[in-house]
Amino acid sequence: MKPLNIAILGCGTVGGGVAQILTQQKDLLSKRSGREINLKFIAELNPEAAIKRFSLDKKYFYSNTKQVSIEEILNDNDIDVVVETMGGKSDFVHNTCLNVLKNNKHLVTANKALLAERGSDIFAEAENRKLQLGFEAAVCGAIPIIKGIKESFTGDIIESVSGIMNGTSNYILTQMQLQNLDFSEALKLAQQNGYAEADPSLDINGGDASHKLILLTKLAFGKKISMDELSVVGIEDINTNDMDFAKEINASIKLICLTKLKDNKIYAMVRPMAVKNDNTLSNVNYAVNAVRLDNKYSGTHFLIGKGAGSTETAMSIVSDIVFIARHHEVATFNEEDKYVLGDAKEVCFPYLVSFKTKNLPGTTGLITTCIGRQGINIETVGHNRFSGETADFSIETDECCLKTIEQAIEDIKRENKDLLLQEPKILPILY
Amino acid sequence: MKPLNIAILGCGTVGGGVAQILTQQKDLLSKRSGREINLKFIAELNPEAAIKRFSLDKKYFYSNTKQVSIEEILNDNDIDVVVETMGGKSDFVHNTCLNVLKNNKHLVTANKALLAERGSDIFAEAENRKLQLGFEAAVCGAIPIIKGIKESFTGDIIESVSGIMNGTSNYILTQMQLQNLDFSEALKLAQQNGYAEADPSLDINGGDASHKLILLTKLAFGKKISMDELSVVGIEDINTNDMDFAKEINASIKLICLTKLKDNKIYAMVRPMAVKNDNTLSNVNYAVNAVRLDNKYSGTHFLIGKGAGSTETAMSIVSDIVFIARHHEVATFNEEDKYVLGDAKEVCFPYLVSFKTKNLPGTTGLITTCIGRQGINIETVGHNRFSGETADFSIETDECCLKTIEQAIEDIKRENKDLLLQEPKILPILY
Repeated sequence: MKPLNIAILGCGTVGGGVAQILTQQKDLLSKRSGREINLKFIAELNPEAAIKRFSLDKKYFYSNTKQVSIEEILNDNDIDVVVETMGGKSDFVHNTCLNVLKNNKHLVTANKALLAERGSDIFAEAENRKLQLGFEAAVCGAIPIIKGIKESFTGDIIESVSGIMNGTSNYILTQMQLQNLDFSEALKLAQQNGYAEADPSLDINGGDASHKLILLTKLAFGKKISMDELSVVGIEDINTNDMDFAKEINASIKLICLTKLKDNKIYAMVRPMAVKNDNTLSNVNYAVNAVRLDNKYSGTHFLIGKGAGSTETAMSIVSDIVFIARHHEVATFNEEDKYVLGDAKEVCFPYLVSFKTKNLPGTTGLITTCIGRQGINIETVGHNRFSGETADFSIETDECCLKTIEQAIEDIKRENKDLLLQEPKILPILY
Repeated sequence: MKPLNIAILGCGTVGGGVAQILTQQKDLLSKRSGREINLKFIAELNPEAAIKRFSLDKKYFYSNTKQVSIEEILNDNDIDVVVETMGGKSDFVHNTCLNVLKNNKHLVTANKALLAERGSDIFAEAENRKLQLGFEAAVCGAIPIIKGIKESFTGDIIESVSGIMNGTSNYILTQMQLQNLDFSEALKLAQQNGYAEADPSLDINGGDASHKLILLTKLAFGKKISMDELSVVGIEDINTNDMDFAKEINASIKLICLTKLKDNKIYAMVRPMAVKNDNTLSNVNYAVNAVRLDNKYSGTHFLIGKGAGSTETAMSIVSDIVFIARHHEVATFNEEDKYVLGDAKEVCFPYLVSFKTKNLPGTTGLITTCIGRQGINIETVGHNRFSGETADFSIETDECCLKTIEQAIEDIKRENKDLLLQEPKILPILY
């Protein structure tokens, strides 16, 4: 069989890592693939820096002494697979990915923002042309959840997909919990240790996790959702008090992605949740990611591993290349888009609700009465941290939907408009 | 494309479950496969009982009013895939599986004993004929570790595979740990609740776990090992004292399978180990299984899920069928068999060694002196449980190899041949 020829667009941390594995492990990968895996070209704006940084041969970057361009790669009929590691969701990257497919080449990418926000025509183009679109690296790095759904749990019916899908926020939350740091200290530490970008907003506001959840919702349930449709709360407002309230009920706070099918509706959300210590997710710490599947026939599964990192992401891309080599023709995996998107506020959880109030007698009575009026049972009222004028405490409720909790809070405000010193924080509790 | 026609040999708990999923989810499975998935025949000694038990149509069991036989299935050119769910490693089952392949049909089986102990010619026959041999269900039920290695981590280099691979023994150990039951009580409970067979020996002596480890060692490292070559200790001798000693060092006892590559040698063992509470495996309880991979590029992964159970195993078999439908031609995944088997006793661990001795002054001194003589550092000497004539206590050592611990114990016996009232138990400690 002819070699599988690869080109890489963009030789930064991830693209360079892919080039290194493809060249250093060429024999092993070729054996596993049943055909030669051959890196042919790399298109990179600054080839000399990349050659030095990754100890790569000049020949990948130059063709007849001319620097290899994206156009040359697109027009090269000898190239079978293009790896896009430029990143970003610009028109340029979007069009380049489409053109890869229009030139009948398989596409492999780790670009979750592009696929989640502007991916529809890219997926459609791949499907129409019976080309493969490898994106294992786009969702939780090296965790094999994409192939898990497409190739391993195909005999099952997925009922929900959930988990910890952003390593940066998990690193921050873990430091807050285990080292008693406040949010800004933990964020700083994450930046110092290379776990957060200089601009960390997409990681801490749930945006990055949302991209992954959108891709998983499409894959598991066939349901396309947009960023606007998704119910998202980030971790920016979590403070040491919240950590403490969670500890009090034997839980730790994690940024949880959840998408589930119930009564023909899809419910999807990204929110900080209080995860009880018995739940495996509660012990997934630092930059580790975890995906939980709840399946009709095979029950609960966890896949836990590094969600990001250059070699992890690069490995995942290389595995997609080997997969394409092993399986040149694959039936499209495309679950029918037949479900309606439900209101995430209708999903029932027990809740941990934390209050900062004036320190007045009768406060607990008023708040618990308002909660009870909505038909919500109270599990525990936590230890009250009085400090002069203010009181901080939390309430653990039995299962109810978010709407009723929000109504109870409105009711509290109606009863005494000055009592609450800040908007109560409402964390779903995961058992 | 023509339908993929399936036949099932043996319609017991698992075979019947496969038939149910194939018939009830036919449309969904066909869509995922890109072709019709069609159950054609089931060969079963007692068709009437199976028809009733699984609410299956008569047509699968009878062909022209005659009961469908294995021969008829083998000779039916229309059948593409045969599912073997008869079980056992008899000559009959072995020959039947070989004949399935010799008749150019793909084979799917959950039969770990057969594949691990007598599988060489079956794997070879499949490879020679470019047929697929699906055995995801044979290793940890629904956990997708086989496809994980064959299709997902193909860009990586596996350094070790370990985990909890026998649900029965994990159920027993969990009950012992959490409910303070002794071994026989926990075993009885496991039998009452359907987690252990009437004859539980293969589960508790490590035999079943060994089968899985043999299959994983072949897959991950290309190394064939026999049952005789594997270092195996079961859980029969674990008692409440051992549980208590483990608790004392913040660990729980788990039956751990481990196969690793180091310096071109493969080390493989099945042993009860004291797993520190920070290790994810320590919190994998009851009948759940977990597989840990340590990979060169992507680091540590855990795959956790139900390791057995009828619907779990059936789902795994159905997924293998869908995989065959989606990928008719696949390059053989066959890592080169190039490594030597190392002596498992040379693998270094910290150890938890428990002693039952005469209750005499000087005992701790003598034992710790003998351990020190072998160059082994002692981490802690645990709380001594005196009871009249006897003393029970444990020692946590720094990392050393099993051989040196065994030499230290020989030394203790030489110094005072009557001191030890039973053979010390030696548990590796996993961090």
